Amino acid sequence: MAAPETMRAVYLEGAGRFALKEVPIPEPGPREVLVAVKACGICGSDIHFYEHGRIGDFIVREPLVLGHEAAGEVVAVGREARDLRVGDRVAPEPGIPCGHCRHCLGGRYNLCQGVVFMSAPPHDGFFREYAALPEDFAHKLPDHVSDEAGATVEPLAVGLQAIALVGLEPGQSVAVLGAGPIGLLAIAAARALGAGEITAVDLVPARLDFARRMGASQVCNAAERDVPKALADSADVVLDCVAVDETVVQAFHIIRPGGRVAWVGMAAEVARVPFQMFQAKEALVTGVFRYANRFKAAIGLLASGKVDTGPLVTHRFPFPDVAEAIEFAARSREVALKTMVIFE
Amino acid sequence: MAAPETMRAVYLEGAGRFALKEVPIPEPGPREVLVAVKACGICGSDIHFYEHGRIGDFIVREPLVLGHEAAGEVVAVGREARDLRVGDRVAPEPGIPCGHCRHCLGGRYNLCQGVVFMSAPPHDGFFREYAALPEDFAHKLPDHVSDEAGATVEPLAVGLQAIALVGLEPGQSVAVLGAGPIGLLAIAAARALGAGEITAVDLVPARLDFARRMGASQVCNAAERDVPKALADSADVVLDCVAVDETVVQAFHIIRPGGRVAWVGMAAEVARVPFQMFQAKEALVTGVFRYANRFKAAIGLLASGKVDTGPLVTHRFPFPDVAEAIEFAARSREVALKTMVIFE
Amino acid sequence: MAAPETMRAVYLEGAGRFALKEVPIPEPGPREVLVAVKACGICGSDIHFYEHGRIGDFIVREPLVLGHEAAGEVVAVGREARDLRVGDRVAPEPGIPCGHCRHCLGGRYNLCQGVVFMSAPPHDGFFREYAALPEDFAHKLPDHVSDEAGATVEPLAVGLQAIALVGLEPGQSVAVLGAGPIGLLAIAAARALGAGEITAVDLVPARLDFARRMGASQVCNAAERDVPKALADSADVVLDCVAVDETVVQAFHIIRPGGRVAWVGMAAEVARVPFQMFQAKEALVTGVFRYANRFKAAIGLLASGKVDTGPLVTHRFPFPDVAEAIEFAARSREVALKTMVIFE
Amino acid sequence: MAAPETMRAVYLEGAGRFALKEVPIPEPGPREVLVAVKACGICGSDIHFYEHGRIGDFIVREPLVLGHEAAGEVVAVGREARDLRVGDRVAPEPGIPCGHCRHCLGGRYNLCQGVVFMSAPPHDGFFREYAALPEDFAHKLPDHVSDEAGATVEPLAVGLQAIALVGLEPGQSVAVLGAGPIGLLAIAAARALGAGEITAVDLVPARLDFARRMGASQVCNAAERDVPKALADSADVVLDCVAVDETVVQAFHIIRPGGRVAWVGMAAEVARVPFQMFQAKEALVTGVFRYANRFKAAIGLLASGKVDTGPLVTHRFPFPDVAEAIEFAARSREVALKTMVIFE
Repeated sequence: MAAPETMRAVYLEGAGRFALKEVPIPEPGPREVLVAVKACGICGSDIHFYEHGRIGDFIVREPLVLGHEAAGEVVAVGREARDLRVGDRVAPEPGIPCGHCRHCLGGRYNLCQGVVFMSAPPHDGFFREYAALPEDFAHKLPDHVSDEAGATVEPLAVGLQAIALVGLEPGQSVAVLGAGPIGLLAIAAARALGAGEITAVDLVPARLDFARRMGASQVCNAAERDVPKALADSADVVLDCVAVDETVVQAFHIIRPGGRVAWVGMAAEVARVPFQMFQAKEALVTGVFRYANRFKAAIGLLASGKVDTGPLVTHRFPFPDVAEAIEFAARSREVALKTMVIFE
Repeated sequence: MAAPETMRAVYLEGAGRFALKEVPIPEPGPREVLVAVKACGICGSDIHFYEHGRIGDFIVREPLVLGHEAAGEVVAVGREARDLRVGDRVAPEPGIPCGHCRHCLGGRYNLCQGVVFMSAPPHDGFFREYAALPEDFAHKLPDHVSDEAGATVEPLAVGLQAIALVGLEPGQSVAVLGAGPIGLLAIAAARALGAGEITAVDLVPARLDFARRMGASQVCNAAERDVPKALADSADVVLDCVAVDETVVQAFHIIRPGGRVAWVGMAAEVARVPFQMFQAKEALVTGVFRYANRFKAAIGLLASGKVDTGPLVTHRFPFPDVAEAIEFAARSREVALKTMVIFE
Repeated sequence: MAAPETMRAVYLEGAGRFALKEVPIPEPGPREVLVAVKACGICGSDIHFYEHGRIGDFIVREPLVLGHEAAGEVVAVGREARDLRVGDRVAPEPGIPCGHCRHCLGGRYNLCQGVVFMSAPPHDGFFREYAALPEDFAHKLPDHVSDEAGATVEPLAVGLQAIALVGLEPGQSVAVLGAGPIGLLAIAAARALGAGEITAVDLVPARLDFARRMGASQVCNAAERDVPKALADSADVVLDCVAVDETVVQAFHIIRPGGRVAWVGMAAEVARVPFQMFQAKEALVTGVFRYANRFKAAIGLLASGKVDTGPLVTHRFPFPDVAEAIEFAARSREVALKTMVIFE
Repeated sequence: MAAPETMRAVYLEGAGRFALKEVPIPEPGPREVLVAVKACGICGSDIHFYEHGRIGDFIVREPLVLGHEAAGEVVAVGREARDLRVGDRVAPEPGIPCGHCRHCLGGRYNLCQGVVFMSAPPHDGFFREYAALPEDFAHKLPDHVSDEAGATVEPLAVGLQAIALVGLEPGQSVAVLGAGPIGLLAIAAARALGAGEITAVDLVPARLDFARRMGASQVCNAAERDVPKALADSADVVLDCVAVDETVVQAFHIIRPGGRVAWVGMAAEVARVPFQMFQAKEALVTGVFRYANRFKAAIGLLASGKVDTGPLVTHRFPFPDVAEAIEFAARSREVALKTMVIFE
């Protein structure tokens, strides 16, 4: 059978407008692999691009393929690729750094100013049948990790990045603000990495129930309780997966002296930190910008069963129904956790 | 009912000689608590003191109560104790530092040169009905952690200290050399703290079976396989819980470039490190000397069920049969994992 | 000659009111030493207590001796003191922690909730002829470190704490916002600890000149230049020794991706962090609350000549003219760097 | 003037045999620069290759250009080079990693198993008039850093790597074993990075004098004193720049409890570590294998004057007298510190 020469890809052409196109299948470069996409989850940033046509300075000026939470199968390898073979199943790491700058050489390649992030303008993501990327960023999946699970490696890597940056020590208590997909994955990761008490905070009872399933040892409904008082000085680490005004303040009440906060969410324009409390606790807060060197650990947690992301995938749409999937996800934030596009 | 004024205590009077005595119950100092011992495990060092009357420069010159892996119940509190109450169940941390030196002020109080280690000459341990110690070193046990489990907090803390010093990162692969009690606890701890592949190495098939139960993902019988070859460059971290000539060399073959080794065992006089390999891998090795600030994390791992030390306790003797228990443990190293003395 | 039984001490009796009193000389406890104060600098917090009678929740309800930047000579030692002798010259560390809590045992005793901070209500500081404190917190000064230099150990320790928390690596570039006493000491410390480019930012030309003398390799007058633009992405580390609205924002412009900020100043009520920039740079900010385990390093920097705090001491008043000294310091912030009270 | 097409290069053809050849000037690749070598120091490994024709498994099978401590001037740039221009002066970092493996992506590219190390078989070094290397590994030198100083960046980077791996904290005491070129540079680096007491240990009085000049605060002649006793428990950090049997043992006597040792020297086959002492001190020892991300910091220390390597360069030979230079260095180890080949 001759290999196909074209593929279907779903392009965002501007705020609210998608188009399905038949385009050439990319040719993998010498050190690249060509991946047939099997599953791709919808991230909040996909929804934001769909609704607004931009995120901050990243503006959709040319048609753009969204989607960066993918899993797929290698169908071709470049002539200098050494580790992967046709048939290998992989989770693509969507941010490809330059490999040459101080950040790349120093091991924090997520800070590379020349990064190509697949699904941010002008670089296409994974809501298409095939994508090529460097072999080093196509992380092999064990046989028993499903495509859907593979497509959760990327958001799980965000949780691992947050935990690594904030420096969780064995047995330390963790509070997770916001029990959406990232928060739930952060809970699961914290549990797998030896946290002690894990407290989930959210406004939605169903999400708090879910938080318990993912590993929270206690939950706190912020609609019912005064979080700063209820949890005052109770956690060594706070993972703020919301980062709105309320949670920013809550975090510094919740931490113990010497506690650390990771801002994982992306909501705030300005984060108003209660300064005297911050100083008196000698607190620390770190940003979290994607991830570097976390995919292998994330895959390991899934492969060993320490983290099970299966329950997170609450809704599925077949490719090429990307528009329907993203519209659904946009209007169902209360009930949908992770909506996924399944290929064939 | 009047409180008793005397108690029974088992003293080591010299190599191979124990004596049961009736002695006064200690009076807790102002910041101390008096603990009624409920269970106390036998450590290799107890056996060594029993067999040789000394360990290095620590010589049993006066009758000495051995035993430092204890759990008990608070029966009296000093007038300045603030946190514990009569009836609280606790795991005593047996090394009481001076609190004033650079090591104490710097958070590494296990290195305090003035430490009082209960069960090393001349400080009595826990093979007696009651013992007094500072409140800060009597760590509260949750109700659902049994006395026997509480008596394994101390050796589990050793494993946590090793892992903390060697710096395990999420998903990193760990090899544990020696599947005795400490090795098995190190396996369980590594698993609970998010290690990836965990490989147990030992000569005894039964111990390797046990290693699997405690969380090893693969095992390697050193009697059958050439360990340096079989496991070459396979682990990010090696926890050498034996530290004999063979394992010292194995460790540096097993680690990957950039790998780290913790010497947890105490066997060697001189550790012969293969230098060129060590340098080329830019390896790191750390000693492990007891623990500092690990009891609360150890209790947390037991309380949450992430570590279950129950299966480790293979043999039990009633107090005051300490001599029988230690003699049994000494001659049954192949079959006995943890032998414990149970108080009534 | 009989030892004196009373001494002079200057008490703050309320906002703006000092009184000189003759009071008993303190008796050192068993592990304490009695120190004859020789020099004591004025800190911004002393001025604040003088002007407002309070700092936040710390309210001067009873007459209080201010002053915590002291040097002196040991004139008596408690019966259990082991390291110091009469005649030793010392720099007193004014925050005495409980020694028992998790923070103390963990090496971050500055976070101890039971700390006795000498000069914060209700604990007297060093504007008196004699003070007793635990031997462990009276740090020995070499002969060639003067009393005045010894009295700068405390603020230098703040700079070291900031640098330690923020994690300066060799050769990294540092920007110091605010060239007051703490900023200047931070500059000197950064230089002594191997920073690369050191940029001082202030509004006052004279202070920037001083910053050059203390080790800044370049200066930036914030009155003349647009700091966020002029220094954009230029520093690995920012030490914000002001912490007002402007500097909080500047800091996150100035740092490179992956950069870290220490808030050393105490001015803000709410610190408004530019969130998107913070996240995109994966920035980190740490509070700085006094210091733990920094006095010996500070003394070492002074003793070796790597840091010379001599030029900082711009004005001197003889004891007991504390009121005059503090009033002078309060109204001369532009010209006075460190005003010091000299005893006899 | 037409550019030359050939250049002179000195090849080691086997143990003890050099040959001067006229060979083509290399063509820089797209991201490479062509450097005209101006100065290149002689390292102990150059001498070892010259004397033995091999170092361990690295065997000189084909003619090889030695020399990796170089400085030079950019004379051509590849079409994709972005940062350097013709005329820029640079210090070449001689180990070029693959850029793709876990070690490269993780920031420890010195551990890359595919590294091309210029001057180790089969990759030519810098005893030739021109060499091409990736732009990212040609580190720009400020105008006021001389060629000779630039040629000491490489060994200084080794000292920085050692200090970084072993984790020097401000004010900590350092002992440096061996006052040869690397030891002297380590002393200078430790001083520039804020070490407290710095003790140099060597057998040769002239080297100890030199150690004082480079920043040692005290010296210890191992020919006259019992080093383990004289320096027992005196240093937080030991940099063992010899690594023979005696120094390996000395190091663990010298460190304080909690101390760390870096093995910088390369002499030992087997390092015999005194185990009981190692454990009781909870010591740590790290290997040092070249460096990663240290050249910029090394250049910064030279540029700022914090480290002056000028006095180290004791002997100079003009290119192409490489054979004479290496023979001299080989037989003059007592008197020569750094022998350098100067180009024109």
